[in-house]
Amino acid sequence: MKYILSVLVVLFAGQVIAQNTIADTYWNAHQKSIIDHYKTFLSIPNVTRDTPNIRKNAAFIQQWMKELGIETKLLEGITPGVTPAVYGKVTVPGATRTIAFYAHYDGQPVNPKQWGTGLDPFTPVFITAPYERGGKIIQLPDTAARVPENWRISGRGSADDKAGVMTILHAYAALKEQKAKLSQNIVFFFEGEEEMGSTHIGEIFERNKSLLNADLWVISDGPRHVSGRKMVVFGVRGDMNMALTVYGPKRPLHSGNYGNWAPNPARMLVELLAGMKDENNRVTIKGFYDDVVPLTETEKKAIAAIPDIETTLKKDLGIVQPEGNGASFLELLSLPTLNINGISSGNTGAMAANIIPVKAEAALDLRLVLGNDLNRQVEKVKAHIRSRGYTILDHDPSDEERLKYEKIIKISVGDGYNAQRTPMDLPLAQFVIKAVQASSKEPIVLQPSAGGSLPLIVFEQKLGAKVLTVPVVNFDNNQHAENENVRIDYLREGIGTMVSIMSGN
Amino acid sequence: MKYILSVLVVLFAGQVIAQNTIADTYWNAHQKSIIDHYKTFLSIPNVTRDTPNIRKNAAFIQQWMKELGIETKLLEGITPGVTPAVYGKVTVPGATRTIAFYAHYDGQPVNPKQWGTGLDPFTPVFITAPYERGGKIIQLPDTAARVPENWRISGRGSADDKAGVMTILHAYAALKEQKAKLSQNIVFFFEGEEEMGSTHIGEIFERNKSLLNADLWVISDGPRHVSGRKMVVFGVRGDMNMALTVYGPKRPLHSGNYGNWAPNPARMLVELLAGMKDENNRVTIKGFYDDVVPLTETEKKAIAAIPDIETTLKKDLGIVQPEGNGASFLELLSLPTLNINGISSGNTGAMAANIIPVKAEAALDLRLVLGNDLNRQVEKVKAHIRSRGYTILDHDPSDEERLKYEKIIKISVGDGYNAQRTPMDLPLAQFVIKAVQASSKEPIVLQPSAGGSLPLIVFEQKLGAKVLTVPVVNFDNNQHAENENVRIDYLREGIGTMVSIMSGN
Repeated sequence: MKYILSVLVVLFAGQVIAQNTIADTYWNAHQKSIIDHYKTFLSIPNVTRDTPNIRKNAAFIQQWMKELGIETKLLEGITPGVTPAVYGKVTVPGATRTIAFYAHYDGQPVNPKQWGTGLDPFTPVFITAPYERGGKIIQLPDTAARVPENWRISGRGSADDKAGVMTILHAYAALKEQKAKLSQNIVFFFEGEEEMGSTHIGEIFERNKSLLNADLWVISDGPRHVSGRKMVVFGVRGDMNMALTVYGPKRPLHSGNYGNWAPNPARMLVELLAGMKDENNRVTIKGFYDDVVPLTETEKKAIAAIPDIETTLKKDLGIVQPEGNGASFLELLSLPTLNINGISSGNTGAMAANIIPVKAEAALDLRLVLGNDLNRQVEKVKAHIRSRGYTILDHDPSDEERLKYEKIIKISVGDGYNAQRTPMDLPLAQFVIKAVQASSKEPIVLQPSAGGSLPLIVFEQKLGAKVLTVPVVNFDNNQHAENENVRIDYLREGIGTMVSIMSGN
Repeated sequence: MKYILSVLVVLFAGQVIAQNTIADTYWNAHQKSIIDHYKTFLSIPNVTRDTPNIRKNAAFIQQWMKELGIETKLLEGITPGVTPAVYGKVTVPGATRTIAFYAHYDGQPVNPKQWGTGLDPFTPVFITAPYERGGKIIQLPDTAARVPENWRISGRGSADDKAGVMTILHAYAALKEQKAKLSQNIVFFFEGEEEMGSTHIGEIFERNKSLLNADLWVISDGPRHVSGRKMVVFGVRGDMNMALTVYGPKRPLHSGNYGNWAPNPARMLVELLAGMKDENNRVTIKGFYDDVVPLTETEKKAIAAIPDIETTLKKDLGIVQPEGNGASFLELLSLPTLNINGISSGNTGAMAANIIPVKAEAALDLRLVLGNDLNRQVEKVKAHIRSRGYTILDHDPSDEERLKYEKIIKISVGDGYNAQRTPMDLPLAQFVIKAVQASSKEPIVLQPSAGGSLPLIVFEQKLGAKVLTVPVVNFDNNQHAENENVRIDYLREGIGTMVSIMSGN
């Protein structure tokens, strides 16, 4: 892959300037208003299950598409009340292929208390750097004509994934304003349920199949490479959530009056979770890695060609020794995970009290790779838990159940989906590689699979479509967490990337 | 001890009626106003570190003592701003001994969100039964002359330990109103820092030693026996808190983009905590049990004579198999503990997100028994943690420290104290046994040591005093936790107990 990249750089060096001219001319003319418009978009709360606000986001996007002259409608599922996807279509006379652009406008749940001082999930502000690295909140003077582009905009969805929506629509706006030639028909598809596992995207696809016919889907989600380079990603891990609750005494007990006698659910849970992995974080659950499809030689070579980021990451994140017993970052991202998203029992810190808690909870996520099946994977975890003497319930135990079973666990399994990978040598894949490279002065990164997840397998299954991911945002964006942010220059460059794909040959 | 108890029952059967007459006459005359007054007392927030409100509690108690004609003052420590103890003294002409009565008016921290619907830590209400057992909140009609005595009063401190304060002062009020003879001088001592480990009680004792001269201290704290019987307890476990924080990446990471590579602090913490115990909850930390002083033969016999409560407890708490691999309840309470009070990392439930959290925290409490030393015990835990490769800090790690040490843990050690036990055959101990038995129709329970903790060792060390505990509240009171409550009949009977000690010979 190294060879191809070098060739591409030479071949498209002239085109870099041409492609970026469209995006940059547009950006330079409108920078301040593009950013103001984005801050308005980010001010609309977008937690997936907050349906009234989610619909306000959909309306905002649709209104914008109408202003751009894009034929648009909301695509509903079959289940009543499903959050709609915002759809749009631009038909180009004489075009021989259709490319669909995907992003999602919903965001992960937020706990405003966990955000930094002066930051709020839905009150976007400018920060000079990530909050954790001492970024300062900056008020832009009213007289300022432009925003410094090494600043960031904070807010839930600023990076994941309203940035996808905004770069796609601004790319179209740039091309339209400059009357540039589109080389293909364009479908726009902005989803509102991605952060809860794209529960109904299959329904939406099935019900609107004829509208969604496309040769290729380009997914704008996730971060660009840690090196800062632009990137094309050929697959994603699948994902599945499990919520575990282990039960102790029926009411909280004084840890002195009952300590050593009453079973402590926090102890039970730490024992259970600790027993699922060895000291190198390798999962010890029976058969956990058995069905993993290994990387192909091409994929292994692509991985080997990707710039090393571990030194940078370790320094940036304050990590001396990563998990995985010496395996490389991308090798580890090619394996399934069993991650503890959160754990809670009783209280810690100032609210801690000397008690034996009544329950202990853990939120897990299981990333899946090619070959894994979500139901099979969950069943392996459940079998392990049963082997430790637990009775699995799908509800809080009744008094009778508490007196019947020695160790009780409630397991709730969320919606999820399997992994997806597109072969790297596919002609359409080569077209996208060329277009993205054309918008970048540096060699772009080609990654066989992202560590993150999107329900791309559903695109293959329901629409028979090929699918690739072209991320636009900075890697240090606190995606899914507090203090989420996006760098302004990445937004500009993201618009350039999308212009290049929409107008490429 | 069984023999002694039987004799006592016969000897004092006549006296039960006499002693209880004083308390019951007083109670029957004032029941409604006693309860209204107690609800007012419980409405004053009493979390230990909430100094302004804590001082309001002290003022409330002092005002009440003044109304009862008790000479009173606030006893300060040496450290400026220490929460005062409320002191009082009644000198009885011709009395040959002084008994001091201790209770504490501060309470454990509260998280109002964890309290049941309609319950609030500082808005006491009547409930028909514990909230967890379906207790209903009952509004008493204004016309009601009496409150049903199987009801409970909810609120932080209702059981632990404003009940101690109120039963002691009402006992004195009853004796005074009925002009009954006091047999000894009485010292009242109500502490306001017990729930943070009685940090300054030693200072207060030292500074006010002459005021606090007493032959015996009677501690009113903790619950009566689970069987419902009245009880004298001859010792307590010591207690010590440790707060642990384990660190992951400097900022929260997307669990897909970094999962399997970035160290997950929740995983590290569960591994660390799980490794401290075996499957029977026996602590595997080196030397953890080495310095435990075994129970004497007298103490073992006393334990053997105590009614079995495990069957009741198991049913009541929904426990099939207690910890401890078959050892009895009281044997287990005679051993040191390593209890997880709370654990937290990221979020669980509806707020869970697919991240690798930045840190994981645990609150531990270590109960200590005779022979244990708090510093030695903490050092054993720290040595274990170091043996697992952790560098222990007393602060959040700097960027430099994060890059220097592979595994970092912050450990904060709270204030604590060692265990205390008074020999059961001491003449003053026999006097208290006799007096408490005299107020009870059923044989009372004599327990060599409580599972819970009080800084009684400080009484021995600073005042050279003997000390015993005479609890008054119901065992199912949710002490230290949400939905704390006290049964009204236990308040009445507690007043009877204290009357009996104050007027006994």
